[in-house]
Amino acid sequence: MSPSTDTKQRILASARELIYSRSYSDVGVAEICTHAGVKKGSFYHFFASKQDLTLEVLDNVYINMKENIIEQAFVEDIPPLSRLVRLAEMAYEFQKQLKKETSQILGCPLGNLATELATQHEPIRKKIDHIFSKLQSNITEVLHKAIAAGDIHQINVDATAKAMLAYFEGVLMMAKTQNDAEVIRQLLPAMADIRI
Amino acid sequence: MSPSTDTKQRILASARELIYSRSYSDVGVAEICTHAGVKKGSFYHFFASKQDLTLEVLDNVYINMKENIIEQAFVEDIPPLSRLVRLAEMAYEFQKQLKKETSQILGCPLGNLATELATQHEPIRKKIDHIFSKLQSNITEVLHKAIAAGDIHQINVDATAKAMLAYFEGVLMMAKTQNDAEVIRQLLPAMADIRI
Repeated sequence: MSPSTDTKQRILASARELIYSRSYSDVGVAEICTHAGVKKGSFYHFFASKQDLTLEVLDNVYINMKENIIEQAFVEDIPPLSRLVRLAEMAYEFQKQLKKETSQILGCPLGNLATELATQHEPIRKKIDHIFSKLQSNITEVLHKAIAAGDIHQINVDATAKAMLAYFEGVLMMAKTQNDAEVIRQLLPAMADIRI
Repeated sequence: MSPSTDTKQRILASARELIYSRSYSDVGVAEICTHAGVKKGSFYHFFASKQDLTLEVLDNVYINMKENIIEQAFVEDIPPLSRLVRLAEMAYEFQKQLKKETSQILGCPLGNLATELATQHEPIRKKIDHIFSKLQSNITEVLHKAIAAGDIHQINVDATAKAMLAYFEGVLMMAKTQNDAEVIRQLLPAMADIRI
């Protein structure tokens, strides 16, 4: 990695970690630079603003989520609906690990920023809306496979996928509010039973 | 109302409106005072801090939600599970009206603050956790009536009520992210079908 790429990646990683553990508004550019070990001038070489940085952080969050959770949960070694249950189990393990490391359930980095910023930063709202659409499409694919396998019938596939994603986000919010990963273990597998 | 009570109520109403439409971190005490038409000294006569104020705002949000939405949705003129569908319809109408007035879907004032602040302000996390428990109990009562009426069988009542609340919060988050009340109309009635 070139020194320049490395600097940019360190800023992105620091922003992601600090914002995820607290909130967008609570973390400033100065603190991100200190955490990343870069000068403020460097920051503005790569990003026009904290909002610009956050848009790139969100892209990285999605890529990470897709590669490390969704693609692994949705491997075709088990029936389609069981893959949704596996996604729920992986989300539980991930948050349980976070709790062990930080003593806190951090919830979903997308959902956190959506509720905090949707009314205030239109580019961020649009970006998260776009990522949610992609996650919904990932679930839609699984549902089409469940239909092809004869496991489910007569559903509105797009609405059901969106409902499952909404439930996923709501359960993570509950777990964060109770600061208890067991909420996810108990509630989230029922995601696979939702039908619209 | 005494002038003192009136001043306090104006501060609470302003805080509630400003924080709900934006976020906790984005709204400062000075702005709340200006909006309420009171001096900063007055503010600190009633509240030790913005966090203290927010704890009282949350109590008011719950009372308002209970009196204006839950108690009306759960009137016993229709079968228990239909009351949950009516709750969903009322949430839709409320957010649709907000959109008409402000051009934005604001989501749930509890869920918004939970995701923004749960890792940063322990008293606020605990307060919202407590209010979510009360909302869960309200749903639990309806479920017990549905069981008594023979409409549902063999569920974990407490977990099902919590799952319904999580779904409610997740759907409102989705609607806020898409800035579209129709998400609520399409998805939220399925809350009544969730079983754990």
